Amino acid sequence: MTIQGTMIIGHERRLGTAGSIKAIDPSTNTEMEPSFGLANSDDVDDACELARLAFDTYRETTPEQRAVFLESIADEIMALGSDLLDRAHRETGLPMARLEGERGRTMNQLRLFAKVVRDGHYLNATLDSALPERAPPRPDLRLRKIALGPVAVFGASNFPLAFSVAGGDTASALAAGCPVVVKAHSAHLGTSELVAQAVQSAARKCNMPVGVFSCLIGDGRQIGQELVSHPAIQAVGFTGSRQGGMALMRTAAQRHQPIPVYAEMSSINPVFLMPHALTNKTAQIATGFVDSLTLGVGQFCTNPGLVIAIDSHELDQFLDAARTAMQAKAAATMLTPGIHQAYVKGTAQLKQVAGVTEIAEGQAASPSQACAAQAQLLSCNAPQFLSQPELRDEVFGPASLVVRCASLDEMQTVAESLEGQLTATVHATAADYDYVQPLLPVLERKAGRILFNGFPTGVEVCHAMVHGGPFPSTSDSRTTSVGATAIDRFLRPVCYQAFPAELLPASLRDDNPLGLARVVDGALVVK
Amino acid sequence: MTIQGTMIIGHERRLGTAGSIKAIDPSTNTEMEPSFGLANSDDVDDACELARLAFDTYRETTPEQRAVFLESIADEIMALGSDLLDRAHRETGLPMARLEGERGRTMNQLRLFAKVVRDGHYLNATLDSALPERAPPRPDLRLRKIALGPVAVFGASNFPLAFSVAGGDTASALAAGCPVVVKAHSAHLGTSELVAQAVQSAARKCNMPVGVFSCLIGDGRQIGQELVSHPAIQAVGFTGSRQGGMALMRTAAQRHQPIPVYAEMSSINPVFLMPHALTNKTAQIATGFVDSLTLGVGQFCTNPGLVIAIDSHELDQFLDAARTAMQAKAAATMLTPGIHQAYVKGTAQLKQVAGVTEIAEGQAASPSQACAAQAQLLSCNAPQFLSQPELRDEVFGPASLVVRCASLDEMQTVAESLEGQLTATVHATAADYDYVQPLLPVLERKAGRILFNGFPTGVEVCHAMVHGGPFPSTSDSRTTSVGATAIDRFLRPVCYQAFPAELLPASLRDDNPLGLARVVDGALVVK
Repeated sequence: MTIQGTMIIGHERRLGTAGSIKAIDPSTNTEMEPSFGLANSDDVDDACELARLAFDTYRETTPEQRAVFLESIADEIMALGSDLLDRAHRETGLPMARLEGERGRTMNQLRLFAKVVRDGHYLNATLDSALPERAPPRPDLRLRKIALGPVAVFGASNFPLAFSVAGGDTASALAAGCPVVVKAHSAHLGTSELVAQAVQSAARKCNMPVGVFSCLIGDGRQIGQELVSHPAIQAVGFTGSRQGGMALMRTAAQRHQPIPVYAEMSSINPVFLMPHALTNKTAQIATGFVDSLTLGVGQFCTNPGLVIAIDSHELDQFLDAARTAMQAKAAATMLTPGIHQAYVKGTAQLKQVAGVTEIAEGQAASPSQACAAQAQLLSCNAPQFLSQPELRDEVFGPASLVVRCASLDEMQTVAESLEGQLTATVHATAADYDYVQPLLPVLERKAGRILFNGFPTGVEVCHAMVHGGPFPSTSDSRTTSVGATAIDRFLRPVCYQAFPAELLPASLRDDNPLGLARVVDGALVVK
Repeated sequence: MTIQGTMIIGHERRLGTAGSIKAIDPSTNTEMEPSFGLANSDDVDDACELARLAFDTYRETTPEQRAVFLESIADEIMALGSDLLDRAHRETGLPMARLEGERGRTMNQLRLFAKVVRDGHYLNATLDSALPERAPPRPDLRLRKIALGPVAVFGASNFPLAFSVAGGDTASALAAGCPVVVKAHSAHLGTSELVAQAVQSAARKCNMPVGVFSCLIGDGRQIGQELVSHPAIQAVGFTGSRQGGMALMRTAAQRHQPIPVYAEMSSINPVFLMPHALTNKTAQIATGFVDSLTLGVGQFCTNPGLVIAIDSHELDQFLDAARTAMQAKAAATMLTPGIHQAYVKGTAQLKQVAGVTEIAEGQAASPSQACAAQAQLLSCNAPQFLSQPELRDEVFGPASLVVRCASLDEMQTVAESLEGQLTATVHATAADYDYVQPLLPVLERKAGRILFNGFPTGVEVCHAMVHGGPFPSTSDSRTTSVGATAIDRFLRPVCYQAFPAELLPASLRDDNPLGLARVVDGALVVK
């Protein structure tokens, strides 16, 4: 498979004619070949109409067919070999080892959803028997979940594989039975084209209906809005900025038929250092924190951008240790020139806010390094933090703010003042648990995941993961974009009343041919 | 308990001071005593703030405490005895037998949710074990669902008990662990006050936190908007008009922090008569249809407002039988003068639409009957239906439109043209199944519940029920407002990573003290 600057629209490979763009190598800030053709409205319409036409067939493929399709996508991506990693490395500046790991994670996601589809637990199969003797008689009632409809997916800049063309949103939507139309992220166009070809190839090999998958290239604002406005699209998956996510939310809410938007947007991921942990594990926490902060040049949704602790001698020691660790961190290339500019501007603005002081810096970029970010650790006290809401905004990159509190009560007040978060972290020893207890209900209200004695970067792909949280960390706190239950976003329940046995879907037949665990007359029955 | 025109705000009974209104007896179109005081903004704020303060305590009551609270609400409502039914009868014009049945249904709902809370299946308890040897190590991860936060509930006019102050929305929100603030419907103010007192009494007896429940009286537009805009409110349950639901959706989407709105709005509930069923069961279906259409003066969300069949001699026979059945139906009092006026206007407008002909009428109202509706059966052909979207709008009341199709293909086209519905019904014999097969995927996309050989009125309260459907039948097709899974609307997942055993919630402890069925390392484990 080769990079030709084309989109994938069903079985077709199409060069967009509404202008062209090139990918940029952020390490040199130079354009790369080839040119990519941009979509026009007809291309959007073609992809969406094909998805609409594919929907009824695709959603009723058997679990085994859909699972094999997902596994085949994984195989086709692996078959791209080092061409994929090389291109992704050049387009994103991310190190090869990281990209290899991210590819592994992408495979895991696809295979996890293959398992989820085979298990069938997501169908929520539920049967209530007829009660003909009751007055009034109760009819036979059966519930299963079905796919919502075609889904628009917007890839993230910071995970060119795991949250992009064949990333978590696409994998979970395909698993649910939804055709997918991806808007490729302009930060990794060649990577996107390669992966899109891999998905197309898997769809062909698995005899999936034309239109089960398309991948468009185009201007985010124009093509993105057209995609979300298209009547065939029934849900949206997005990972990116708060501004971008909220624009899609508005468009989706203003449609004639409003649709759900699953936007993962912004989070500063507070880390609470409780007194005994701070005393007993000062250096260990400081090193772990700086490693987490600078991992991947701080370009993770779960980057620890806020530290909350009691102003104390121990905190000073923690900051000394963090300073030493940070001084050893080299500047590194960010994903795009735009992201780098926003980081430089964002950290400069933070430093201007009243009461904010500089604690430590990573190494400065060398003159030959384009788009390289220098890590930043800043500090303020709690009253300053509480009175200046701009300190609660995310600065995407390796910058963090330490909030010095006068007391445990003030730590609690800072916690209450936070907006919704993907994660909240607590460092505590057993001696701290009495202090942690009143903090936990606050953190449950604020975050989708609460961690003890770890760091929030590193989002495990498993059944119990929640990568979600209250607004503005996401648009919909009821869901997760990582982990097995991400499939629930793309489903809706349908009830079948007094259906003839011949017409029931397999998941609801008396003989339970799929071997599902089902709720029967209110009791869970495992076959 | 007595009707004094007051609101319930936490433990307090408060007479609103922002003006007053009286309930209206629709059978005579006259005002009833006493006056009800209207809420001002401070009352709204007080109720919401109390709910906010109650939230952390209430959501962590034990399953048994919450179940007993729900059962206690049921007991307290029963203890109101005939006072409640008498008042509801006078305020709504609904017959006593219907109200007695509806009270039974309301008890069933509260008791079903008590069972749901005790079962704990809704918690989605999920555990993934630590894998310390893996590179990188996997931390211990556990997921449960927690309550969203305080919920605003807007009662429906047409179910003064089952979809009102202590109806399905309130029961499922309280079951989930969400405090509830109800906006009482002005169509049954006294009924609302009595039920609100019953809930308050149950909350007191069960030692629930102050603020777990409040009930406001006020102008729908003003107080309703203030309630949905209040920062403490985290979700909205609504049953009513499309216009009203969409106004709340807009308000909720425009908040600084957008919140979910579960609005059940409008549905015309198509009934498809397949050829063999129409031939073999003409009179039976006609009688059943007219009974369903006129049940409760047609004031059900699932009232069959549309019939689709092939234009044929058999259809003429069906319409003859329907005419005979309808002529035996007396006019009956509608819920409010406003609903009656809208029905008269809506049916008159329908008759003006090009190609619409009158098939049958029920008996006209006698001069002494105020607000009494006459049943109406109209007809048009498929091209007329397809080209005039106003024929797809709901007319609330006992009116239905028969669409004559030239062929099975045209029936399919009519199905595809429909907006989202709560229900779709098929009348078919085994000889029709070949024709039904291609129709089913369309109906699955259009409706939340598909019925065979029955009528959509009568919504069973059970585990497999879906009372929901694609827009505009509801604002959120992913949910149901009736049945056990209605609780899912008021929950969100939280993941606990590497938590100390001492701090884990009971549902996620190793020893599983609640005896929950849980997903452990990807496999469902029933204790």
